[in-house]
Amino acid sequence: MKNLAISSVLKKLGLSFDNDIGIYSHEKTGIPLTLFFDDEKEQLILLDQTKLPYETTIWSTSDWKEAALVGIKEMVTRGSQAIGVAGGYSMLLAAISCSKKADFLYALESCAAIIRNARPTAAPLPWAVDMTLNYACRLAKEGEPIDQIIQGVKEVADYILSSDLVLNCYLREEGKKFLVDGDVVMTHCNGGSLSSTYGGHALGMLEESFVEGLDIKVVAKETRPRCQGYKLTVWELNRAGVPTTIITDNMITSAIREYHVSKAILGVDRVVRDGSVANKIGSADIAHIMQTHGIPFYYATSYSTIDLEIEYGKDIPIEERSKDEITYFYRLEAEQKKKDGAISQEALSGWPPTELLAHTNHPGKGQIAIYNPAFDVTPPKLIDLIITDIGVFAPDQIRTLSDSLMRQEVKERLEKWGISSPN
Amino acid sequence: MKNLAISSVLKKLGLSFDNDIGIYSHEKTGIPLTLFFDDEKEQLILLDQTKLPYETTIWSTSDWKEAALVGIKEMVTRGSQAIGVAGGYSMLLAAISCSKKADFLYALESCAAIIRNARPTAAPLPWAVDMTLNYACRLAKEGEPIDQIIQGVKEVADYILSSDLVLNCYLREEGKKFLVDGDVVMTHCNGGSLSSTYGGHALGMLEESFVEGLDIKVVAKETRPRCQGYKLTVWELNRAGVPTTIITDNMITSAIREYHVSKAILGVDRVVRDGSVANKIGSADIAHIMQTHGIPFYYATSYSTIDLEIEYGKDIPIEERSKDEITYFYRLEAEQKKKDGAISQEALSGWPPTELLAHTNHPGKGQIAIYNPAFDVTPPKLIDLIITDIGVFAPDQIRTLSDSLMRQEVKERLEKWGISSPN
Repeated sequence: MKNLAISSVLKKLGLSFDNDIGIYSHEKTGIPLTLFFDDEKEQLILLDQTKLPYETTIWSTSDWKEAALVGIKEMVTRGSQAIGVAGGYSMLLAAISCSKKADFLYALESCAAIIRNARPTAAPLPWAVDMTLNYACRLAKEGEPIDQIIQGVKEVADYILSSDLVLNCYLREEGKKFLVDGDVVMTHCNGGSLSSTYGGHALGMLEESFVEGLDIKVVAKETRPRCQGYKLTVWELNRAGVPTTIITDNMITSAIREYHVSKAILGVDRVVRDGSVANKIGSADIAHIMQTHGIPFYYATSYSTIDLEIEYGKDIPIEERSKDEITYFYRLEAEQKKKDGAISQEALSGWPPTELLAHTNHPGKGQIAIYNPAFDVTPPKLIDLIITDIGVFAPDQIRTLSDSLMRQEVKERLEKWGISSPN
Repeated sequence: MKNLAISSVLKKLGLSFDNDIGIYSHEKTGIPLTLFFDDEKEQLILLDQTKLPYETTIWSTSDWKEAALVGIKEMVTRGSQAIGVAGGYSMLLAAISCSKKADFLYALESCAAIIRNARPTAAPLPWAVDMTLNYACRLAKEGEPIDQIIQGVKEVADYILSSDLVLNCYLREEGKKFLVDGDVVMTHCNGGSLSSTYGGHALGMLEESFVEGLDIKVVAKETRPRCQGYKLTVWELNRAGVPTTIITDNMITSAIREYHVSKAILGVDRVVRDGSVANKIGSADIAHIMQTHGIPFYYATSYSTIDLEIEYGKDIPIEERSKDEITYFYRLEAEQKKKDGAISQEALSGWPPTELLAHTNHPGKGQIAIYNPAFDVTPPKLIDLIITDIGVFAPDQIRTLSDSLMRQEVKERLEKWGISSPN
């Protein structure tokens, strides 16, 4: 089966080239793709998320190493699904750059090792790198010439992109069944278009419903410390015109009262067998408060976040991130106060000063610790539904799934769009 | 009855002059007074809270207008109790400055009007201003000379300061009964020494217990948008040596798990008859989550925050504050990114841009609202105890109180310290 060309998939989804930004964007929501590959220029184009929301612009490179070490590692693009796609195209750039080398495959493998490790925890990255590399190896073994191998790598990378685009479309369809006129939806972090390739997670369904005429409002939480809610979620909802209210993370109860919140819908980092969900820090707090108010709490995600290797929520490893993420704003403020003459040079190091900081999460006498877990775990009893691109599940149904079942569901959906894995 | 001199009260409480800071501080906790009056220099001395936590320094003035319009209005000192005391001493400065005027009382009344309005919502400010002014009027009517009237104003101002200091001492004693070795206490905003004159609200009891040898740890929430938890609570707990962990506001569930939080104790803005409590935005979120975890939730406060005029929590007016409080950090960040060359001049206005902002809390299509309520209301069913300087109450006991009963309780406690109102 020959895959539908990327251009046809984009067209079918209503995405066309947006000259203002320099990347495809959706004709109705106005939200851009987070990345694509420009065949003519042989460039990976990323929506530059380091500049959002202040500036909407693209970042591009034809250098595989820059794609990996800047584009992925320095988070020009982010969100696990987008990272996977970027990994596939980084491999394509690597294949092109290695094409003149005698030891093509060996050189490509060296590049793959670097790309694979550009971000440590995003599971789709090594998956995408290995998928492209394995296909290149297979074609090489079959005696294909280098230009055919490069073409093969491109087919795999395009498959990764187009399958993400199409599966997000299925996810939106599943989610839209639960939205009604007048809904006020609370969300958290950026489980949205910007953390997929387009229109994924919790926000895609809201944006599409809104542009199709449903009366929906969103309450978006700031999401300290990195503030992806304030910066990314509000930006993308606003592109689609969705009326959006920003609140800080401590206004859950107040916002429920002020806005008559009718649902909470959040993206997902990982779902495990018992139906527990790991997601951005603060998700579990929302789930607790929604339950005490009797408001439905949904997670929305790609099947790829379902991890059947882990049985219980308590066994999900929680990444702890740098204290600097939390202290960043206070360093900016100290600098501003110094500039204004309000504090002295000695005070410029900000707060808390290094000598008071504990080296662990557990401070001793006279010490200050800064705790920065990236995720928390919502127990299944607080989750009403887990909406995915392969169907909608109650938390206790997750354990009935298997990897082969999920692969089959995905395959069937993609085939309806004329898409199949080149592997 | 002659009042115990301020210096004796300070000494009894373990407060002595700290030459490093230039204000009295506690010998064991190291925490300074938030304000006092230097009789010799005829100056109001404030701990400069606009520079905290970056720099620990004082601000002083002998000009009553500067005391009101900078010291109080621009929040060099803050917290309702401290504002009241600062109002009393501002009146003393005003009386001194009017002493050569023929129309002394008329001039003093004009000053009082300005001081009274320096902050719109802090109830103790007009109370303190009127108390000093009324006493001045009474002495004038009794034919006392101006220097005696000024002395009378000083006595009232000293009474306001010393009664706050002493009542906080009673509050700490009440609260300490509920603390046990090994407690891990979550707190929010700054219900602490810094929002009273010394050692008040939720933190005073923790700091005192710790320096007296109890093994206590505190988890302090950042408290967006003004971040008083991060900046003030952590600063004062650290002065006393209390091991303290900073979390962002969305880490309640995670911190309960990581630190085995055993209690939540928060300060109070207002208690009403049905036992509802208004406090800094985010307090109710904590109360909900503590209840689902079965962890005791306490409020700790001065009797002066009990408002028997209001029957139900839903009737407490909630102040909404400027959007700028929430956008402030993002403007700093946009400026930093511009300075680093990461974004262009046009993007410098920050996010969201003014033209996208809704003018109300309820955004229309294509609009973004920023909701910034200063307080939320915790329903009585989520509160275990309300600890005050006149006793400990279950929420449903609040309606059994009366203003005369409370005044009597206060009077008895102050008399044990040799303090009574000059009025």
